[in-house]
Parts: sequence; structure tokens; C-alpha cells
Amino acid sequence: MAGKHPVLEALKAGRTLNKIWVSSQAQRNLVQPILDEAKARGVVVQQADKRKLDQLVPGIQHQGVVAQASSAAYVEVEELLARAAEKGEAPLIVLLDEVEDPHNLGSVLRTVDCTGGHGVVIPKRRSASLTAVVAKTSAGAVEYVPVARVSNLVQTMEKLKEAGVWIAGADAAATSDVFKANLTGPLAIVIGSEGRGLSRLVREQCDFLVSLPMFGRINSLNASVAAGVILYEAVRQRSAKA
Amino acid sequence: MAGKHPVLEALKAGRTLNKIWVSSQAQRNLVQPILDEAKARGVVVQQADKRKLDQLVPGIQHQGVVAQASSAAYVEVEELLARAAEKGEAPLIVLLDEVEDPHNLGSVLRTVDCTGGHGVVIPKRRSASLTAVVAKTSAGAVEYVPVARVSNLVQTMEKLKEAGVWIAGADAAATSDVFKANLTGPLAIVIGSEGRGLSRLVREQCDFLVSLPMFGRINSLNASVAAGVILYEAVRQRSAKA
Repeated sequence: MAGKHPVLEALKAGRTLNKIWVSSQAQRNLVQPILDEAKARGVVVQQADKRKLDQLVPGIQHQGVVAQASSAAYVEVEELLARAAEKGEAPLIVLLDEVEDPHNLGSVLRTVDCTGGHGVVIPKRRSASLTAVVAKTSAGAVEYVPVARVSNLVQTMEKLKEAGVWIAGADAAATSDVFKANLTGPLAIVIGSEGRGLSRLVREQCDFLVSLPMFGRINSLNASVAAGVILYEAVRQRSAKA
Repeated sequence: MAGKHPVLEALKAGRTLNKIWVSSQAQRNLVQPILDEAKARGVVVQQADKRKLDQLVPGIQHQGVVAQASSAAYVEVEELLARAAEKGEAPLIVLLDEVEDPHNLGSVLRTVDCTGGHGVVIPKRRSASLTAVVAKTSAGAVEYVPVARVSNLVQTMEKLKEAGVWIAGADAAATSDVFKANLTGPLAIVIGSEGRGLSRLVREQCDFLVSLPMFGRINSLNASVAAGVILYEAVRQRSAKA
């Protein structure tokens, strides 16, 4: 885990951190909140050269702070539903069908947090998983948004349907405009990979397919932007209804 | 840039290409004219796996050929307004206030293309500019969405206001919910940097400020997701009104 904000949020969330490295070149006032929080929670902090930090998380903008976390735990799909039930809310869940770009997973986690969604489901194969890059791009949301990792996405969709959740697949070829669909009930939104869209079996298992209206030449949305627009449309409809 | 025909045409037209990737799985006789033309013009050609090409231009039918073009030329702000006028549409423009992440600029270009927006304005200083990374993340939208690069964003906002465009600043601290704002008129949406939000002078120059409702713990949206949600809300309101 890397970056001032993600590490501070991890500490505040009570996440188990084995150790934190702080660059000796980092500005003291900027890392002080992390040092305070780490001390209060008994997490070891070690000063290190910026080069050492670069080596720990190659290619990541660590802003002078790197933490070794016990790897983020995945939850069961039932836990996402339980979370919604506890809050007395209609489930709002995102399923990612072979979304492999970790930046997209991180960005989706942020949006699910913002929209008050109850979690994300990813498949075990051909998918970004909860890595340091995802934690960083999630701006700390990885600490609060539960992620279920499943062997078979289609079986999970069946399970969700049995629990009364409607499954909306985002499909560019769908004729049904997302702004005309009813997103106020218990809902799982399925987002496909950028290159290939939804896989056939996943598409067939959806209750309905929705598309975003397109007026351009390329007409290709970033997967996390598509997820964001649909999640916020669900939020808009729910608050208009309330 | 992707596809056999577009790349061959770009080569023949003498457009500056940095590099061409050809899928190792592409049929030789179909890409031969491109290889010949590239050789004649001294453009580097690299064999790559089809998956690599899929990643370079996600969502685009590249037919086994992808080219990296030198960055697109910038236009004047007046051209963005002229574009809207030509189409008989109310201007829909995005202003990026010190958005430095090239992935965000690329992603915004994609969404502006999808929503039929008329262009993007970026400042010359402290901003991502039209680089190869942006071109790639834009999935080709950089070829179609005009970008104006200005010395002073606040002066450009004044100019847009004089032209009858309303300026909406996205500000997390704003009390006005974007879903309750009227986005159907001539509109420029200002998105601030992820770390700092809108700069003070830019915020003061906005006609109104809008926020996205937040229900989470982190409540930090990716800048390009925020832009996407607001752009699509404008699209939704405009089509509901039409």
C-alpha cells in the first residue's frame, strides 16, 4: 500500500499493517498525521531513503509513504447483501466481468464508496485483484468497500437473482437507454471488459441490458466512467423516489 | 489511431506517426501495404500480440494495426463554440483546472466524444497536455474532440460567459446537488484537480457550483468519473427536455 491518503485511511480503518516506511525526504508536516496515528495504534514506522520506497512499490507514486498491509481480505457475496440489509437499503452492487485494468477497479471502488454501494464482485480469473496499485487508485476506498472474489460469475448472478436482486448488464449494443430503466430496486450492475464487453454467458444471465446514449465518433467509454454514470443514475432515481 | 485503412491513409497523407504496432496474428498480405509504406517513410513498425493491441486501443476494432500519431493540434476556444453553432446545439464544453493526470485527460476526451460535447479547454500550465499517453487513454477520441489550450483559464471563462455560456464548477463543498441544477442551456463544466479541487479564482468566476451527492466514507471521485457523471446528467436533461 502506498501514498499518504491510502495509508492514513488504512490506519484509521483499523486495518492490520505490518510496517510503514516513511521517506526521510518527505515533508514532516505532511506525514505527521500518519506518524501520530501509527503511534496510537502501535504500528512500526521506519525511516528510509526514497530509493528504498521506490523499490518496495516499483512504478507507484508513493508520496514518501509505503505500508505493508496484510493483504486485503475478500468477503463472501452474502456479506454484501447483509450489508445492504443492515442499512435497510436496496442492494446496490457492481459486478466486474473480466475488468483487468487495476486503475479501473480502483476507480470503481471509489465510486461505489461515494454512491453508498454495498460492494463489488470480481471473478478469480482474468480480473484485476486487490493489489497495491488498486489500493492506491482507490484513494483508500478499498478499506471500506467490500470485495467478493468468486470462481464463477454466472453462478453468483444466479445466487443474487434468488436473493431478489435485479441484474443489469451494461452493453453498448443494448437498445434500452439506462436513463429509462428502473434502477430503484435491489440492483447489481455488470460492467464488462473494455475490449470485449460482457462475455456471452454473463450477458445471457442478465435480467436486462442497458446502454448509455452515444453521440460521438468513437463512442467508447472508460469502464469506470460507465460504472460511475450508471451508479449515479441509480442514486438519482432513488433520491427522486424517496 | 487504429485499423488498416486509417493507418494506411495517415501514412499516405504524410501524417507524423511515432510508431506502428502490427498484430503477429494479422494476415501478412493484408498488412503488407502498410509495412511497405511505413518502410518508405521511416516509421518504426513493431510486431505485437493481439492482446497488446487490444490494450492500446480498448474498445476499438483495430484489425491488427495500431499507430501512435504525434499529438493533435490545439484549437482556439472560439472553434469550440463554432462547432456547437454549426450543429445547432447548445454548447457543452469541459474546462479542466490543473488536472495533471494524463489518464484523466484521456478519459475525459472519451466521455466528451460519447456525450457529443463540443470540446475541452486546458490551461497551458500545470495541466496534462496532448501527449501519447493521453492519445492512447483517449481510445482515439483525441482525433475528434477539439482541445483549446489557454494561458489564463479565468479569462477564458469570462469570454465564454460573454458568449452566453453558463459556467458550472464541480465543487465537493457545494450545497447544490448537480441533479437539481439546470444543465440544459449553453454550458461549460469546470473540473478541478483531484488533490486541490478548483483553484480560488476559477471557483469565484463560476456562475454556479454543483456537487455530486456523497454517501460514503472516503467520498473522493476520480476526476474523469465526476466529469462523466455531470456530462451524462446534461445529456439526460437535454433529451428529457427535447
